[in-house]
Amino acid sequence: MAAAKPIVLYQTEQSARTRREILAVAVDIASAEGLEGLSIGRLAAELKMSKTGIFAHFGSKQQLQLATIEAAKEIFFRQVVEPSLDSPRGIARLNAMLNHWLGYVERIVFRGGCFFAAASAEFDSRPGAVRDLIAELTKQWLLAIREEVRFAQKQKRIRGSIDPGQLAFELHAYVQEANWAFKLFDDQSAFTTARSAIAARIASVGLSGTPRK
Amino acid sequence: MAAAKPIVLYQTEQSARTRREILAVAVDIASAEGLEGLSIGRLAAELKMSKTGIFAHFGSKQQLQLATIEAAKEIFFRQVVEPSLDSPRGIARLNAMLNHWLGYVERIVFRGGCFFAAASAEFDSRPGAVRDLIAELTKQWLLAIREEVRFAQKQKRIRGSIDPGQLAFELHAYVQEANWAFKLFDDQSAFTTARSAIAARIASVGLSGTPRK
Repeated sequence: MAAAKPIVLYQTEQSARTRREILAVAVDIASAEGLEGLSIGRLAAELKMSKTGIFAHFGSKQQLQLATIEAAKEIFFRQVVEPSLDSPRGIARLNAMLNHWLGYVERIVFRGGCFFAAASAEFDSRPGAVRDLIAELTKQWLLAIREEVRFAQKQKRIRGSIDPGQLAFELHAYVQEANWAFKLFDDQSAFTTARSAIAARIASVGLSGTPRK
Repeated sequence: MAAAKPIVLYQTEQSARTRREILAVAVDIASAEGLEGLSIGRLAAELKMSKTGIFAHFGSKQQLQLATIEAAKEIFFRQVVEPSLDSPRGIARLNAMLNHWLGYVERIVFRGGCFFAAASAEFDSRPGAVRDLIAELTKQWLLAIREEVRFAQKQKRIRGSIDPGQLAFELHAYVQEANWAFKLFDDQSAFTTARSAIAARIASVGLSGTPRK
């Protein structure tokens, strides 16, 4: 029964819920206006909460930025990584990873496009814990793409002479370029262009594929 | 003779010189910390000038941001566009444009990497005159790459079946990816990877080229 719930547990749940609500707004602001655009005052105004209430959850602007990046990671995981796991490993999963990633930008999950593209451009020249976390998470994603290329090579679906790092760089570049063009020029066709580039590039490295036109 | 120089002319030259000095510092700050990181107060402190003195040159933060972008455009023109004009039109100039662009990031002309990549990520979700200018200048560069592909097609050096916009998108993506990886991971090898991608992609669309490995 709800009335019998210990007060401490109730407070903890309440606190976690509020933290999630704050971070949902923080992620949205940060994706469009940058992690530096986040401030405890701005969040307090947006959420109609007291600054003290928000400060109690994060303690400092840097803690708030780090928590916002972790929250964005969870959204990226749910929107891009998890659905890709439904596809069998190798070429199918590689395609799924790239397509779900394009889809998450196209569906405007974050107002500012790919959260990590925006955050890395903002923080790449600012050494510190925020840049380190962005770099670490982005690296993991880039390595996951490379690993899927390696797996497809073991399955003899991609030629062994292909450098997995080189191919991952190119595929990653197409998706980032689509995000960039879509956000800067409102150019929806960038997704089609990126999908064509990905399909042609993957076909060109396949053992059974036709040479790229 | 210097002594005979009209005072008004002298003041105008002095003013232009100061404006250039302010903008040189502004471009450097903006490339690393963003155009929003620019403030008249920050510039006054950096240049040991009065805020009033800087305000007299620009009038508003937005005017300062627009002037900074114009100054960055001139640097990009001198560092990337001008040296490319030494190469004959077609494949040679296309390669020169991409290589000089990579070189300008690699030589750290701007502390924050490619000025326009940083500025577009910062302003792509902020409608207004600043975003419009960044989009317009970047578009010109992308179209110049596409035009060079078209020229090479007319010269029968690139197959006519290739979509120039598609190829420009891919080549542009490789350079932007190198800038991104270099800035986020301090990864110098990204330039080699981008150069390999560019060389292989251009070879693969050539009429006399060998199929891409």
